[in-house]
Amino acid sequence: MILHGYFRSTAAWRVRIALGLKGLTYADAFHHLRRGEQRAQAYLALNPQGLVPALQLGDGAVLTQSLAIIDYLDGQFAGPPLFPADPLRRCKVLAFGLAIASDIHPIQNLKVLARLRDLGLAETAVTDWARDVIEDGLDACEALIAGEAGPFAFGEVPSLADICLIPQLANARRFGADLRWPRLLAVEAAAGALPAFQAARPEHQPDAE
Amino acid sequence: MILHGYFRSTAAWRVRIALGLKGLTYADAFHHLRRGEQRAQAYLALNPQGLVPALQLGDGAVLTQSLAIIDYLDGQFAGPPLFPADPLRRCKVLAFGLAIASDIHPIQNLKVLARLRDLGLAETAVTDWARDVIEDGLDACEALIAGEAGPFAFGEVPSLADICLIPQLANARRFGADLRWPRLLAVEAAAGALPAFQAARPEHQPDAE
Repeated sequence: MILHGYFRSTAAWRVRIALGLKGLTYADAFHHLRRGEQRAQAYLALNPQGLVPALQLGDGAVLTQSLAIIDYLDGQFAGPPLFPADPLRRCKVLAFGLAIASDIHPIQNLKVLARLRDLGLAETAVTDWARDVIEDGLDACEALIAGEAGPFAFGEVPSLADICLIPQLANARRFGADLRWPRLLAVEAAAGALPAFQAARPEHQPDAE
Repeated sequence: MILHGYFRSTAAWRVRIALGLKGLTYADAFHHLRRGEQRAQAYLALNPQGLVPALQLGDGAVLTQSLAIIDYLDGQFAGPPLFPADPLRRCKVLAFGLAIASDIHPIQNLKVLARLRDLGLAETAVTDWARDVIEDGLDACEALIAGEAGPFAFGEVPSLADICLIPQLANARRFGADLRWPRLLAVEAAAGALPAFQAARPEHQPDAE
């Protein structure tokens, strides 16, 4: 398998964690987002969205969208499940993941912040935008798991919820968010003890700057 | 089941289509987004994200996030499947849905456009933002299914992909997008012939204005 990614992309980071939890090995292909390499024709032929990650399977099939890739990996490979087996619990885990992957990350990613700059917004206003979106979104995430036992977001083992949360917390720090989420930070501490979460961190990627 | 929604929310619209395709009946609870009713304490107790849709089951359990709800409905109820059984095809359908639900809709929804207005952007700039995001995103969607047989996005039966696409095309029209996607429009025509897609349209909801 070849993972098309970028060290700082939180969506690629999610897939790195999932691959690690499943104990799967893969080759890396890096696309430097700030240099626009994801818009190169050769990459667009693989993923018309021009986004990372994309996961290329041994037979050449290309999977896109981090949550779809993780759902696929979970169904196709042994190793610890990334979703609870109970349907209602599965739904709650997926909803938590989407609360980050749909309602926080896309509104504070590189592409949207570049659009804001193009509109003439000052750098402070752009940073405020990202921080506000992250703080509002993670406030909701903290509430979504208020009734759940730890140490992970949904109980004793990591799931898609934790896979989405950890990279988003890194973005929260990057944009100077008020880290007012004791439960989310406890999840981060629990995840930080696991090799799959450690190895997936941006600073441990070969393309890290 | 009670569907908490709003006639114009494209995320609630997706769930209405899914419920219709599965042949499920439900009661409506409406929350007027422009009046901020989704931020009322009683609703936040159901869904801390303060977003529609939420689906309340007979036992009181509350499901949130349209794609998580649809994944749950598909697993728990008989009727036509909303995802292909083949894992790779399932992944492609989910990725197409996420290309809309994560990468288009959240960046052009009411909340983000209100943020742009708060930053002092003129109404034309706000509309341009929404239209550009939709056009870029649907260009990618057209490419994602270029190699797929019709009449639906992924073959002969509707799936999550069509469920996400139809409401997004309505938003494309609303913001004056250039409808330069013959394949997507052909999907829309095929879907428009099905009662579940017809009944789910905003103008057929009791809270339509």
